[in-house]
Amino acid sequence: MTYTAPVEDIAFILEDVVQIGQLSGSTAFPDYDPDLLMPVLEEAGKLAQNILAPLNALGDATGCSLTPNGVISAPGFRDAYQAFREGGWMGLSVPSEFGGQGLPRSLALGVMELMHGANMAFALCPMLSFGAIEALLAHGTEDQKQTYLPKLVSGEWTGTMNLTEPQAGSDVGALKTRATPDPDGSFRLTGQKIYITWGDHDLTDNIIHLVLARLPDAPPGSAGISLFLCPKFLPGPDGDAGERNSVNCIGLENKLGIHASPTCVMDYDGAQAWLLGQPNRGLAAMFTMMNSARLNVGLEGVGVGEAACQAAFAYAQDRKQGRVEGVNGPAPILHHADVRRTLMTMRAKVQAARAICLACGMAADRALAAETAEDREAARLREELLTPIAKAWSTDIGVETASLGVQIHGGMGFMNETLAAQLYRDSRIAPIYEGTNGIQAIDLAGRKLAMKDGAAISTMLDDIRGVIRQARETNDPQLVQIATRLDDATHALRDCTDWMRAAMQEDRETALASATAYLRLAGDVIGGHYLAISALRGRHLEGTRRGRTLALAGFYAETCLAEAPGRVAGIKQGGAAALRESEAVFGLT
Amino acid sequence: MTYTAPVEDIAFILEDVVQIGQLSGSTAFPDYDPDLLMPVLEEAGKLAQNILAPLNALGDATGCSLTPNGVISAPGFRDAYQAFREGGWMGLSVPSEFGGQGLPRSLALGVMELMHGANMAFALCPMLSFGAIEALLAHGTEDQKQTYLPKLVSGEWTGTMNLTEPQAGSDVGALKTRATPDPDGSFRLTGQKIYITWGDHDLTDNIIHLVLARLPDAPPGSAGISLFLCPKFLPGPDGDAGERNSVNCIGLENKLGIHASPTCVMDYDGAQAWLLGQPNRGLAAMFTMMNSARLNVGLEGVGVGEAACQAAFAYAQDRKQGRVEGVNGPAPILHHADVRRTLMTMRAKVQAARAICLACGMAADRALAAETAEDREAARLREELLTPIAKAWSTDIGVETASLGVQIHGGMGFMNETLAAQLYRDSRIAPIYEGTNGIQAIDLAGRKLAMKDGAAISTMLDDIRGVIRQARETNDPQLVQIATRLDDATHALRDCTDWMRAAMQEDRETALASATAYLRLAGDVIGGHYLAISALRGRHLEGTRRGRTLALAGFYAETCLAEAPGRVAGIKQGGAAALRESEAVFGLT
Repeated sequence: MTYTAPVEDIAFILEDVVQIGQLSGSTAFPDYDPDLLMPVLEEAGKLAQNILAPLNALGDATGCSLTPNGVISAPGFRDAYQAFREGGWMGLSVPSEFGGQGLPRSLALGVMELMHGANMAFALCPMLSFGAIEALLAHGTEDQKQTYLPKLVSGEWTGTMNLTEPQAGSDVGALKTRATPDPDGSFRLTGQKIYITWGDHDLTDNIIHLVLARLPDAPPGSAGISLFLCPKFLPGPDGDAGERNSVNCIGLENKLGIHASPTCVMDYDGAQAWLLGQPNRGLAAMFTMMNSARLNVGLEGVGVGEAACQAAFAYAQDRKQGRVEGVNGPAPILHHADVRRTLMTMRAKVQAARAICLACGMAADRALAAETAEDREAARLREELLTPIAKAWSTDIGVETASLGVQIHGGMGFMNETLAAQLYRDSRIAPIYEGTNGIQAIDLAGRKLAMKDGAAISTMLDDIRGVIRQARETNDPQLVQIATRLDDATHALRDCTDWMRAAMQEDRETALASATAYLRLAGDVIGGHYLAISALRGRHLEGTRRGRTLALAGFYAETCLAEAPGRVAGIKQGGAAALRESEAVFGLT
Repeated sequence: MTYTAPVEDIAFILEDVVQIGQLSGSTAFPDYDPDLLMPVLEEAGKLAQNILAPLNALGDATGCSLTPNGVISAPGFRDAYQAFREGGWMGLSVPSEFGGQGLPRSLALGVMELMHGANMAFALCPMLSFGAIEALLAHGTEDQKQTYLPKLVSGEWTGTMNLTEPQAGSDVGALKTRATPDPDGSFRLTGQKIYITWGDHDLTDNIIHLVLARLPDAPPGSAGISLFLCPKFLPGPDGDAGERNSVNCIGLENKLGIHASPTCVMDYDGAQAWLLGQPNRGLAAMFTMMNSARLNVGLEGVGVGEAACQAAFAYAQDRKQGRVEGVNGPAPILHHADVRRTLMTMRAKVQAARAICLACGMAADRALAAETAEDREAARLREELLTPIAKAWSTDIGVETASLGVQIHGGMGFMNETLAAQLYRDSRIAPIYEGTNGIQAIDLAGRKLAMKDGAAISTMLDDIRGVIRQARETNDPQLVQIATRLDDATHALRDCTDWMRAAMQEDRETALASATAYLRLAGDVIGGHYLAISALRGRHLEGTRRGRTLALAGFYAETCLAEAPGRVAGIKQGGAAALRESEAVFGLT
């Protein structure tokens, strides 16, 4: 089973749907030239197809191992990382003054989708490094930047995020790792962190850990958390990795999936570290990385979903069972109506998720690049609104698509050597980490809907209305029908949004009990919005690509959007019912 | 993590919802005494809790192994099987003339749910044996019955079903295994079968394989398939296992889940076998077993779903994160609104699935036991209607519940040692085997809706209408509200049923493209029907159990049923959209 980089689909969303071309000539992205788009995606596609994808099954079967000298990564991963590093992929969206290429985030996200789709376990390593780079860019001193950024941006070193402790998962504020000041201005970290992705490995000769810990005088809870930078090897006077620091991987988790990504228990035993950013402001600093990581995790859902679509389609073309009218002899199961609908569901939802994620990335870019302060603020609000949807909706779609992919494979899908089975396992982490999807829903329904008195969601709804109008004005019957479905679905979303905003004020628990259902509806409708834009803009495409764009939007409208109005009751009454009835069922008071 | 046998929930459905008491005194079940119900379930619950559940994690971690002497089962499974056998569980619903206890099928299904919930990999072994027993009862000669039934019914030997070959999965008619007649009236089987559950093992000293194969003069396709009985060891003159037959397990599959259930590649190399039933009528004979196996697989969804509910609830009680109003200190996550709704969704759907499956079992019992021929025929139609729903809807719910269970566990749910992760893997096979859920949907939308000009579905809809009326007549506001939701949902189902029956005549491919969506709606509504009956009948229960019954129905009504009307468009227009649009997307013509 091979992975084919979906370069055309990503390029179409970037160019035509989110219109990345508008960034060209901006002061924020002086180096972005629209002619770069296809070469960058194609080159990344080659890395994904030819280097990363062929290692995916072996990495799953072999995993990593912990030795007295640290973690040994899966076979072939060192060479693959070397190819990744030499391609300059780590610095794609990092400003050129720090050794990067200064390209838009949205383009870098398109590239990350390709890596996730080809080999999610591998792609997690640069994903975490990117988070560390962002935190240094935002909060590092000049000295810290000079010391660490060039090596992180070149990929010579990698970075990690250390938040979770056994008692502190979603509730980060409960963490206990201590930071004791040293006379030289550095700190000593003591404590254990769990679930640290790529916390140790043999791909590079140093690893830079970003660690949340408490200063001695810190207030309790999340107001008393500081962010520290703790290298595995202390940089020597020449800037290279020097003395070994007392931070160690003391355990590897045995996981359901992403076996080639080492998930480490990290022990800090008086490890030397430096404060990154302000004391007791570590959580805010970590959220700089987290928001961007959330969007990246959304793209894991897209990447894995894409891989699941491809594997299922290939299997359905190949596997012959039964007869279908119009097909001579045993028919490839692709021709069976139930299989066709399943494949369409997978394909349409993955494309919608891709568009949501790249639109979120584009909003992040425009928040830097738009000409007026007003436009930049509007873009920032859009990014804030879309981030929890991109994370939660896309990763749920990733899991659902992977599960449908298993189903298409029949008995073969239950065999561990089948890619479909691996994707079912790998995909399952994405709704959990970087803030569970339940946390995302609370973020959306609580914080994001309330921002600027609802400005973020109401401009989103206005944009959808504009697209509905454009679709109707074409007088193309297919587009008019899509507009009708989108209009009905948007009414449902507006209705639920009004209800949710009011409920958040009046009866917060009830509102929270419907937050997940609300996020799902928001993703369904906003996904339909971007597919409708695709259908509008896709009319200039040629031949089959034009028809394909319209077809995905049309199918999505008749299924996903058509069901949206029916979900209002479950949102508006379901939460209250959950709280009321769960008292009797679970003995809660 | 321990499994607690849900004896009360099962007993309530059997006694109050499907009213198993009506079988007492029937000629079909002369030995059934209502006083047996609780002792049987409690005793089965002890076996499940104390013997089977403790082996589940070890079985998953260790799996089975293939040696030159055959398959070695997972640690502890031999002793567990011995306990199962000594309890007489295999013969629970087998007529006493063949050594069974002659109890109703529905009660035996309740027992099977307990085994599946405690250890699905183990429970598959008796499940397959039961299929072999049924086939012998229905199609065996007197001699065959005398030779094989006592040993199968006592559990001294086990049975298997051999259908699938590499090129013949859903399309059983494509199988190639040959049966050559021997002068003594027996046959020689030659060919390979795959995906044979418990095809070899060391639990018993013989295994009776039921094998589909072709006679030399057989017509092509499914009309040329015959069923054969092929023992691993040929019974000697004393009836005990004698000479080794030339049937061997030559490979074990490496699977996503149910690791302790050996999934065998079986090689028949001129193995001696006997025709079971009529030549070329093997498929019909196999369907005798298959229908009953399908219902059993539905109960796997229920059992695994129940186990997932219990594990998630226990974790949510134990795991403390964040604060909730009204809870001192860090709150168990059970108190968070989003977690409460998730747990309610899991619990309500599993109870609905349980009721559908046990109602299907009860229909099977009444098809034998009802007093008039008319009632028996009506029960048979009900059984036929509910079988595909019990299989497909319940197993989909099983997978979804297991996935929600992983989500409740957060990062811990992604760890392989966590039961939640095992259930996510184990559950995934149930929508695939014994006829994929897509095949079930085709069976429902095609054959079952058409039976007797729609009599099966229309009496079902009439029954629902009766329950709605009863609920309204109570004047209890909660029941009246449930009735309102059920009424709206039933209108949607009726509408889609009319559409589906017409579409099956006029445009079969379009109908088939909506078959899965139709089955899902039918399961949602019929599940709500049985929960409404539960709420009505549960009013005689005491204290918390009464409230619990009403609460599950009430929550289900405000969420699952409330969304049902919104699914009509996706059924009536979604299939056509899938076929139309998939041409452009997948290049189909």
